Amino acid sequence: MHSVTLDERPIASDTVGLLEGLTTTRSIRRYRDEPIPPEALRDILFAATRAPSGSNRQNFRFIVLADGEIADQAKALVARAAQTMWSSKRRDEGYDQGSGAVDDSPKARMARSMEHYVDNLANVPALVLPCLIRHRPANATEGASVYPACQNLLLAARALGYGGVLTIFHAYVEDELRALLELPDDVAIAATITLGRPAGNHGPVRRVLLADLVYDGVWGDAAEWAVDPPGTSHTRAGPPRPDR
Amino acid sequence: MHSVTLDERPIASDTVGLLEGLTTTRSIRRYRDEPIPPEALRDILFAATRAPSGSNRQNFRFIVLADGEIADQAKALVARAAQTMWSSKRRDEGYDQGSGAVDDSPKARMARSMEHYVDNLANVPALVLPCLIRHRPANATEGASVYPACQNLLLAARALGYGGVLTIFHAYVEDELRALLELPDDVAIAATITLGRPAGNHGPVRRVLLADLVYDGVWGDAAEWAVDPPGTSHTRAGPPRPDR
Repeated sequence: MHSVTLDERPIASDTVGLLEGLTTTRSIRRYRDEPIPPEALRDILFAATRAPSGSNRQNFRFIVLADGEIADQAKALVARAAQTMWSSKRRDEGYDQGSGAVDDSPKARMARSMEHYVDNLANVPALVLPCLIRHRPANATEGASVYPACQNLLLAARALGYGGVLTIFHAYVEDELRALLELPDDVAIAATITLGRPAGNHGPVRRVLLADLVYDGVWGDAAEWAVDPPGTSHTRAGPPRPDR
Repeated sequence: MHSVTLDERPIASDTVGLLEGLTTTRSIRRYRDEPIPPEALRDILFAATRAPSGSNRQNFRFIVLADGEIADQAKALVARAAQTMWSSKRRDEGYDQGSGAVDDSPKARMARSMEHYVDNLANVPALVLPCLIRHRPANATEGASVYPACQNLLLAARALGYGGVLTIFHAYVEDELRALLELPDDVAIAATITLGRPAGNHGPVRRVLLADLVYDGVWGDAAEWAVDPPGTSHTRAGPPRPDR
């Protein structure tokens, strides 16, 4: 019997709609201890790389670290960076102060979720490092050629029943990562993305009012039609305040 | 009779699947002369702003320029910038040389599409300027908080039957745009996006081989499972070469 190889296998059929996916995909930081099979990785990375880039230069690259010694070492490095960054963030942004001292406050829940994330990062099912091959000096708009692909990646994961989150934790262990993964000098690491099957429940996407994010004409003039649809969940922007 | 207001109106129902949208959305540069109704703009911008940003800071803002004097002036400015940039690109990248001299070559078709785009940019149905409120000095990873939202925006447009393209044409008229739109000093323009109902036919998404974009472990080691699904369309990366 002939088993279907990946070059014969179409991408998976959709079970989630496009607008539904765009409006409900949220960062997932708790994963089941379950590997991501090759056909799912193929579909996720295929979708990621269909994103646009300047002049269709496709100067994005994705290093996928799932199994093996290199992957384990890379995950351990990023976990160490994440633990360091989270410790200072927890202190500087007062996660244990104000409402953070109340066990079921949003702030305390966010702190527990982050704590769990960094403590388990060394064992995530897959760590993906999106990279950018620079053809110009580093600049603030170069991300237009790599972050759209990162967003496609996270949305495609959702389409297949996975979830993930994008961080810039790599920045704290960049030299070690570059050496381990043999990155050429003209290649920048754009982010770290972790992926896995979501564990437990997770809440809705929460934002500020649409009218605070979308202007019509000059800066600050809320668009008349910028009205949240019924059922939208809201939150303040940014990290918690120490005193609240 | 009570007509449904936007706060009572859910986002549109899906007609496109999530993976299908991710893998087939391409840049659209020719638009019908047809305005985008407020409910479609609402859905598109709602989906855009559900994208993640660092610490959920939501420091992205979208200025939507559809109708009125300010919109007309902004479109004219960006059109002028685009015409200037395209003229030099056309010359520097040899769009009229090599196969560019052959009427139906991919290169000649790309040149005609760009020519049409910049010539008609002043009259696009909607121009969107995604902006970023900086809370740190300009840097190469700040785009992680605005370009995912731009990609959501382009995908949501597709979900509703619209299309668009992201460029950095604003860079050539940035001072004039900032003055016209009254941008505060700490706000960066991240891109220009044009949106409209696609006119005519457009081809598939074309990329290099997946195995050239996705590595497993160290840099350059193609992932074994990085195999294009059947029917994938390919192209070289980047702008055409003068001599081909």
